[in-house]
Amino acid sequence: MTTTRYDIGLSKLAEIDGNAGQNVIESLQSICPDLARYTIEFPFGDIYQRPQLDLKSREIGTVAALTAIGHCAPQLNVHINGALNVGCSPEEIIEIILQMAVYAGFPAALNGMFVAKDVFIERGLIKA
Amino acid sequence: MTTTRYDIGLSKLAEIDGNAGQNVIESLQSICPDLARYTIEFPFGDIYQRPQLDLKSREIGTVAALTAIGHCAPQLNVHINGALNVGCSPEEIIEIILQMAVYAGFPAALNGMFVAKDVFIERGLIKA
Amino acid sequence: MTTTRYDIGLSKLAEIDGNAGQNVIESLQSICPDLARYTIEFPFGDIYQRPQLDLKSREIGTVAALTAIGHCAPQLNVHINGALNVGCSPEEIIEIILQMAVYAGFPAALNGMFVAKDVFIERGLIKA
Amino acid sequence: MTTTRYDIGLSKLAEIDGNAGQNVIESLQSICPDLARYTIEFPFGDIYQRPQLDLKSREIGTVAALTAIGHCAPQLNVHINGALNVGCSPEEIIEIILQMAVYAGFPAALNGMFVAKDVFIERGLIKA
Amino acid sequence: MTTTRYDIGLSKLAEIDGNAGQNVIESLQSICPDLARYTIEFPFGDIYQRPQLDLKSREIGTVAALTAIGHCAPQLNVHINGALNVGCSPEEIIEIILQMAVYAGFPAALNGMFVAKDVFIERGLIKA
Amino acid sequence: MTTTRYDIGLSKLAEIDGNAGQNVIESLQSICPDLARYTIEFPFGDIYQRPQLDLKSREIGTVAALTAIGHCAPQLNVHINGALNVGCSPEEIIEIILQMAVYAGFPAALNGMFVAKDVFIERGLIKA
Repeated sequence: MTTTRYDIGLSKLAEIDGNAGQNVIESLQSICPDLARYTIEFPFGDIYQRPQLDLKSREIGTVAALTAIGHCAPQLNVHINGALNVGCSPEEIIEIILQMAVYAGFPAALNGMFVAKDVFIERGLIKA
Repeated sequence: MTTTRYDIGLSKLAEIDGNAGQNVIESLQSICPDLARYTIEFPFGDIYQRPQLDLKSREIGTVAALTAIGHCAPQLNVHINGALNVGCSPEEIIEIILQMAVYAGFPAALNGMFVAKDVFIERGLIKA
Repeated sequence: MTTTRYDIGLSKLAEIDGNAGQNVIESLQSICPDLARYTIEFPFGDIYQRPQLDLKSREIGTVAALTAIGHCAPQLNVHINGALNVGCSPEEIIEIILQMAVYAGFPAALNGMFVAKDVFIERGLIKA
Repeated sequence: MTTTRYDIGLSKLAEIDGNAGQNVIESLQSICPDLARYTIEFPFGDIYQRPQLDLKSREIGTVAALTAIGHCAPQLNVHINGALNVGCSPEEIIEIILQMAVYAGFPAALNGMFVAKDVFIERGLIKA
Repeated sequence: MTTTRYDIGLSKLAEIDGNAGQNVIESLQSICPDLARYTIEFPFGDIYQRPQLDLKSREIGTVAALTAIGHCAPQLNVHINGALNVGCSPEEIIEIILQMAVYAGFPAALNGMFVAKDVFIERGLIKA
Repeated sequence: MTTTRYDIGLSKLAEIDGNAGQNVIESLQSICPDLARYTIEFPFGDIYQRPQLDLKSREIGTVAALTAIGHCAPQLNVHINGALNVGCSPEEIIEIILQMAVYAGFPAALNGMFVAKDVFIERGLIKA
């Protein structure tokens, strides 16, 4: 019996994104289940499981990139949760979003920060 | 006597980017020295000196964001050097650029990787 | 009597986008009717009516581009409808959006796929 | 007693964005008050107060850029208000958004125009 | 005899961009002369000739947008020349590029500023 | 004996991109051979080999997306070659790049067209 990329990816996805990742996968079933499968296999089964970089650093990089790209609010929400799940502190997450004001401009940083605010409120880390 | 944002920024810039950062500053003198000053004061004097996130994590986030944004090859070159200067290993830098294939697509990751290749060759970390 | 670019464009717009295109045109009347006129004249009166590429291929390219650009959900909705109207199958549309995971990253592909899901539900092609 | 960048920025922010800018600042207090402070100090305390370009031209440039970037609807709303506040006519604002069809494509221009429509309705400049 | 959009556009293009615009048009002849024609007709024959906004403000907006978009160095070069041709001062052009640090990040502003430096050196406004 | 995703991808890559794709793969060997492997496995071994969309349509979509994204000239060069290799006519490729003026603006379309010009000259389809 072999452990497949799908198995590794599913386990890694649960470790990082918990239910949020699972919800994305489920919402794809009626339209393109193969995109769900590829999302598990490539990002999580191939990339995130590699030992060359710790999960905290991976999530710092992902939160930075999604904030900078700017049109990925749903994925940024998932990965701010993921960053918290793998051990980033709220202060570290706020800090890397703030830093994006330098590289992607203040609007991108502001929009990213408001996604973090939503996540932190939902998790009871700050008051609404 | 007070230490100004400019002084703090200049010191932080030297710590992270070394000569590469200094070259950018000098090349602005004939066209817009104020942009050089703001580049020292805001990114380096305000943001990078904050204690909430270590410099290694800051550079991981910056390399991720610049790879994802895609039209910032000169700045990515500077910050891959910066990442090495503050203690990121070549493997960690390669890894965060690779990860951007997931979030910004393969072309952005490929173009970022070729910038890293240039830097690593220049620093003698790999052969041409 | 001559057929103007406006006439050609209006006819081409109706052929491709049906009511969805017409709604965009109408919603511009109180703010900038000239943008409505240019939208009819240039994209539809000049470009889409050219014989060098069939309408199915044009819509494949437009769905790909709008998915990749990422901040154009309303226009992507209109053109997924347009692609169906000119003969693309649902499977072909899903497939070109999926392919954008390679070029623009998984978040862009996921967000594009959820726009397709909305359109397909609205047209009764899949269940909610 | 010295006038600080913060004081200058707060005054400039009030002149340009009025309550809209103030609301953004307040909404950051629970998540990252430092981003609010930097937003006042750098864009408004450093940049907008410089005498080299009049405020009308600054807002024309900002509305153009935010329309072109495309994922900054909240900031575009604030700066369309700002453009009106510093003396741009509704026609001039519509015109620069329209011009972005050339540089960023019709979807970006359309999405920007609909933000302008919201602002103009809210200010009673056009009917809903 | 009627003045066509093409005639109006060609005249407007010459007024704004001089030879730089003409070179772009000529370089398209072997690959897609229709793109040259549309570039004359829509941006210059339709948009830039409209009376609702003066040419200086149009070029301020275009320089801002092209700096922010970031992957348009050749067009930014043409329009920095265009801005000078229609009466913007070098200081005003520098200033609007500088302002883009706020909205599109420091890398975009730096890259835009180096394009301006090239143009200003070529026109003898600053020394190499 | 099983045919792996890598085998399928390598064969598909050769079919579409010929030597151009192979050169990209080789240039990654000294810096990140895993990115070369993933580029073969995911885009070509997973996506391009799927039967839901013909290769001509896939390349139309890719050329459209890479033109619109704008900072991917090397990859656009490879895929304009790829489009020709799988049966797109030069006219169809020119046409989809032209169409991007509508969705991503004239600068993106112009820059994409000049990449096509380079490819067509190199392949002897037009004169320099």
